[in-house]
Amino acid sequence: MKGIKSIELILWLLIITSLVISCGEKTNSEADTMAQESDHPSLILTKQGIKDIRANLGKVPIFDESLEATKSEVDAEIELGIQVPIPKDYSGGYTHERHKRNHLIMQKAGVLYQILNDEKYARYIKDMLFAYAELYPTLPPHPQTRSYARGKIFWQCLNDSNWLVYTSQAYDCIYNYLTEEERNTLETELFRPFADYISIGNPKFFNRVHNHSTWGNVAVGMIALVMEDVSLLQRALYGIKDIRLDPNEKDNDGGYINKDGKIGFFANLDEPFSPDGYFTEGPYYQRYASYPFLIFAQALQNKKPELQVFQYKDSVLIKSVNALINLSDVDGEFFLLNDAQKGMSYDSRYLVSAVDIAYKFGGNKPELLSIAEKQGNVTLDDAGLAVALGIKNGKTKPFIKKSIELADGANGDEGAVGILRSGDLELVFKYTAHGLSHGHFDKLSYSLFDEGDEVVQDYGLARFVNIEQKGGGNYLKENKTWAKQTIAHNALVQNETSHFEGKYDLGSQHHSERYFFDSENESVQVASAKEVNAYPGTKWQRTMVLIEDPDYENPYVLDVMRVEAEKANQYDLPFYYLGQMMQTNFEYSKLEVPEILGKSNGYQHLYKEASAVSKGGNLKLNWLLNNKFYSYTFVTAKNDEILLARIGANDPEYNLRTDPTLILRKKNTKNTLFVSTIESHGTYSPVSEFAVNAYSNIKNIEVLLDSEDYTAVQIDTNNEKSDIFIISNQNSDKDAAHKLNIENKEYTWKGPYLLVEKN
Amino acid sequence: MKGIKSIELILWLLIITSLVISCGEKTNSEADTMAQESDHPSLILTKQGIKDIRANLGKVPIFDESLEATKSEVDAEIELGIQVPIPKDYSGGYTHERHKRNHLIMQKAGVLYQILNDEKYARYIKDMLFAYAELYPTLPPHPQTRSYARGKIFWQCLNDSNWLVYTSQAYDCIYNYLTEEERNTLETELFRPFADYISIGNPKFFNRVHNHSTWGNVAVGMIALVMEDVSLLQRALYGIKDIRLDPNEKDNDGGYINKDGKIGFFANLDEPFSPDGYFTEGPYYQRYASYPFLIFAQALQNKKPELQVFQYKDSVLIKSVNALINLSDVDGEFFLLNDAQKGMSYDSRYLVSAVDIAYKFGGNKPELLSIAEKQGNVTLDDAGLAVALGIKNGKTKPFIKKSIELADGANGDEGAVGILRSGDLELVFKYTAHGLSHGHFDKLSYSLFDEGDEVVQDYGLARFVNIEQKGGGNYLKENKTWAKQTIAHNALVQNETSHFEGKYDLGSQHHSERYFFDSENESVQVASAKEVNAYPGTKWQRTMVLIEDPDYENPYVLDVMRVEAEKANQYDLPFYYLGQMMQTNFEYSKLEVPEILGKSNGYQHLYKEASAVSKGGNLKLNWLLNNKFYSYTFVTAKNDEILLARIGANDPEYNLRTDPTLILRKKNTKNTLFVSTIESHGTYSPVSEFAVNAYSNIKNIEVLLDSEDYTAVQIDTNNEKSDIFIISNQNSDKDAAHKLNIENKEYTWKGPYLLVEKN
Repeated sequence: MKGIKSIELILWLLIITSLVISCGEKTNSEADTMAQESDHPSLILTKQGIKDIRANLGKVPIFDESLEATKSEVDAEIELGIQVPIPKDYSGGYTHERHKRNHLIMQKAGVLYQILNDEKYARYIKDMLFAYAELYPTLPPHPQTRSYARGKIFWQCLNDSNWLVYTSQAYDCIYNYLTEEERNTLETELFRPFADYISIGNPKFFNRVHNHSTWGNVAVGMIALVMEDVSLLQRALYGIKDIRLDPNEKDNDGGYINKDGKIGFFANLDEPFSPDGYFTEGPYYQRYASYPFLIFAQALQNKKPELQVFQYKDSVLIKSVNALINLSDVDGEFFLLNDAQKGMSYDSRYLVSAVDIAYKFGGNKPELLSIAEKQGNVTLDDAGLAVALGIKNGKTKPFIKKSIELADGANGDEGAVGILRSGDLELVFKYTAHGLSHGHFDKLSYSLFDEGDEVVQDYGLARFVNIEQKGGGNYLKENKTWAKQTIAHNALVQNETSHFEGKYDLGSQHHSERYFFDSENESVQVASAKEVNAYPGTKWQRTMVLIEDPDYENPYVLDVMRVEAEKANQYDLPFYYLGQMMQTNFEYSKLEVPEILGKSNGYQHLYKEASAVSKGGNLKLNWLLNNKFYSYTFVTAKNDEILLARIGANDPEYNLRTDPTLILRKKNTKNTLFVSTIESHGTYSPVSEFAVNAYSNIKNIEVLLDSEDYTAVQIDTNNEKSDIFIISNQNSDKDAAHKLNIENKEYTWKGPYLLVEKN
Repeated sequence: MKGIKSIELILWLLIITSLVISCGEKTNSEADTMAQESDHPSLILTKQGIKDIRANLGKVPIFDESLEATKSEVDAEIELGIQVPIPKDYSGGYTHERHKRNHLIMQKAGVLYQILNDEKYARYIKDMLFAYAELYPTLPPHPQTRSYARGKIFWQCLNDSNWLVYTSQAYDCIYNYLTEEERNTLETELFRPFADYISIGNPKFFNRVHNHSTWGNVAVGMIALVMEDVSLLQRALYGIKDIRLDPNEKDNDGGYINKDGKIGFFANLDEPFSPDGYFTEGPYYQRYASYPFLIFAQALQNKKPELQVFQYKDSVLIKSVNALINLSDVDGEFFLLNDAQKGMSYDSRYLVSAVDIAYKFGGNKPELLSIAEKQGNVTLDDAGLAVALGIKNGKTKPFIKKSIELADGANGDEGAVGILRSGDLELVFKYTAHGLSHGHFDKLSYSLFDEGDEVVQDYGLARFVNIEQKGGGNYLKENKTWAKQTIAHNALVQNETSHFEGKYDLGSQHHSERYFFDSENESVQVASAKEVNAYPGTKWQRTMVLIEDPDYENPYVLDVMRVEAEKANQYDLPFYYLGQMMQTNFEYSKLEVPEILGKSNGYQHLYKEASAVSKGGNLKLNWLLNNKFYSYTFVTAKNDEILLARIGANDPEYNLRTDPTLILRKKNTKNTLFVSTIESHGTYSPVSEFAVNAYSNIKNIEVLLDSEDYTAVQIDTNNEKSDIFIISNQNSDKDAAHKLNIENKEYTWKGPYLLVEKN
């Protein structure tokens, strides 16, 4: 037996060698062909998968519906005819949107060809590919020059890479439909030059750890797998080895091109993902990057199972899908962390792929089926069929989003995002690393959602993605001057400067430190973190608590932020409530005409509308949003200033939203403590015109103690009940015993905090 | 036979007389008792109705659900116990909301007692009524003094009347449960003094044509019917005869108390309703008034069928329900006309009653059943049962809201509201009379809705109804200084003054004139009206056209407004778009800091943010709202000014919404023509990030001709197609033949307008 096996091996090697030799003209020296299997499709759809899909047609509703929708869409496009215009526009413009549509439709047409065995789909792809094969060799870099890495079809290599990721799948689907000569033409005239251009032709784009490069790596990898090109695949997985980039060079978003020399697909999997599956740029970009990561992983699993890509880094790809779902609100919309456009959700087509792939290749977790049901469609491939069958067979379980902390950093030791959930409230507390070039300068900031609606908002990015009217759909200059700045967030600002002086170089060297996260007790959930680098000489700790208490209509938020500084500073704490102010319990004087709040660091974009000077004690803002009443109660010292401001100054093109904020300003202060609560306490019906619980339930908040070791706060309700919250500031050990005397009363407890009713 | 009848008649008269004589002590001289039937309940619920309801329990889903919901609500209140506090607060405050809740719950408890025959409900009402009978005689007028007619339980007689309208029904339901002595106590200590106080005690409130008085009349009428008190009923139906009020006196909203001496329920039915059923104050107040009108009509129909109240004025009450439904958008929310709070809809409890009553007493129109289905509940009485059975028996037909013109004025000759509907668009064009004390100075203004969302808004009122934090939930001073002023509307403003100098005395003497309304051709629907009184010496005609054209993605609006004046003026035409500006096709310079636009007439509430001077030609504003793209294209002359402004100046308590506007200003101009289009042309998805049809389809609008007799406008699309719209300015006869030569081409047509494709 051994003898025979050896002979077989030798024969195989001979065959392979001859295939390699017979492979004909190469377009470049790297184009060594892999062992030829001639099985197509084999990337995403597989021979077996198609067999199973065909056997189940008409039997699995969600699959059939997705197929029908795809067929309608593609048929309509075929009807319109093939349009491959000469590239001209930025995103949002005709040529951009047309080419984008082309690759999306080609991918779908390929799938339809395989499933329905209708030649018209193959012909459509073939005709379009040949149109591209004719156009592509004639193209110079794209005429729009804004990108550090211009594509040929699109204004940036990123979009060219999108094109190739999708088109590779279409090519795989019609591979056997084409003659060898046709394939040679396409590969020679289109695919290899295309792959070379976005890699060797644009090393700054390709050799990088960044969502752009992930797309680039995967584009090259996908076409390599179809063409079975070993050398191209190596390039995709491990980067272009022989090129050295200037470690200080930056892209047009201000991010480093390649500071530490890490390159290739695996480096992109190593670096931005934490062991929890948190992607350091945040969920908005994770959603975008998830597609290439997961589609390529699926292709690798099918073509190169020995790489065990889904097991890589303790199954980080599967974990990342779970993390991403947890980073969405009750409606499935992603929380705003770093650059992020509002309204993006797990209904995104990228997430449909991600969920289906994670289900099939991540152990068929039944919770994912409930997400797929909400998405309402599946991918038309082996993974989608698995999900559809899972749903059909009643395996669905609800995906229950609980409070969760997701560590940041390749090793999970660079801070975290803490999400506290209780009732209808979701609090997102950010104490992460910087988040690469899409990061904001907002250490220890937070946002608050109620039934999926933002109540205390994170502004998000200053961009209208793909809306050509607004700067070609690209990042607006206000993204840098406003959206990234600290004052644009619910975060501490010292001396009207942003964290790390607003410098990416500094910010990207540091991260906040998690202090502790404890969501075990559902009625008191706490996340606490520290920041010591954003302002040299100043350190602060913020503790966000979500408290469920039967004395209150709903859970409420307690925010305790302790600042220690070496010198006196001005501190501003903005509070970006959304909605219409109803009432304050303090008098403010409104300016006749707004004033611009400051000169730089984002302050130049705020109008000061009104101000007040505190006499000390609790101040209260009561407002109405979506027919719910909210109150913000904050402890002040005498002479603290309150600024009522609005976004929109120095906005010559109406790029910003004119949302309000309240800023608590403490001048000439060294150490201090910010304490506040946020309540969602009442409702209004414009139909019945009933206002229910329109007022805050909190009568008073008092700081009982604030030392280096402990901070204690008492909260009194209108019903004369009092709670005391104590946090240990130096010891977060959950088993540590504490004893503390406050107002002649002794408190003893175990762990970093105590919430107790006052007797 | 005749003889017998005469004898019977005599016998009857004897019986009746003896009953009247035996009626015992009267609390006041007017309390002559009607023929006593002793049948209770007989007002809203009837003996037969109860029999039918009981027979159908458990068989009619919507009725059972409504019953179950009511039972849960009332049971919870009974659990809480009876609270009859000493009156103290404005609306929104505790005592106000508690007393309001009491009468709502008593009415429901009465119904439950009758249907379920459970004594606990009767006992609850009885106990509460006796608590009121104890409190009421001790009460002075309400301590809050803002109203021209203070109540005793509430701050205004209006709310006291609400109380009595509901409580009368509860009393009717437990009438037979009480002993005669108990009834005597309640009637002597509570009901008669109560009825007297809101009528004889407050003649300014009671003797008036106004929604307040309707409530007052009906309150007295309802308790009269229960107590079978002829004299009180007369007072309700025909007012207090022997009182003369100063015809120039006004209430605290600025409306006349009683200018023309019309009084009583029937006068309130005669005056504010047009023959089409349009209520001159607008749908928001019609909704509020509809309840007393219809509930009392139902009671009269049951107790005094000989009055034929539902046939009164050609069945105006039934027509009014139809009109009101037509005055709502696709979601059932009422259009904003005059003082009106956004979000009010036909889901209001008042409309549930109105729809059910209109169904039962208005010929069982099956379209009303579809509205009842959307409301999701029915009244627990004979009318509600009829609706529930109609639904159960599958009689429902859709209520299709078409374009409709609803005339204003008691005789239907005081202007109208024109509603044009096409596709997802609903255009509301107002050319009515003033609308009594709730009227706004906005002749020939309009608003536009798309899929039920306001796109070009009417501001509505400046009030947060029943939200105590905002001025006790009452009208805010900004209602007068801003919301009623012309500049707050999409209406022509001359020389920065409001129509009729903003004076109610002047405004209420006039109305706009309908010119024509034609919605027969679904692809071109036109409403045209003229205003000649609002600015003496100036007259203008506005023509709003809704055009459905296959060259456009959606129907679009054409607005042609022709102004003729005796002297040169400044004209401002505001355009209150809602959403985020995307782009303009003209350059504007934004001010560093906003300026207050003017000193008075509402201008003091606008901030000027940016301005531009036209070089002539078409200007365009492109904006995004709810993920839809809109464009406003307007014809300008050289040196026309464009102001980009925002609401919010001189708003010391944040009572206003900070919404944007664009104002086209023509200075020193005598006659002129404003022409513009509004397109809803595209969509954006924040999930797919696709922008579709982001730009206007209109390349150019040109005025071809503008004479005293004709105005002609050409509209060119980007696809090089052209349409010509011509309106005859002097002859609106739909049969008149016209011939007109424009640019050497002859146009002939019949009727007041022509829309034709240019060859």
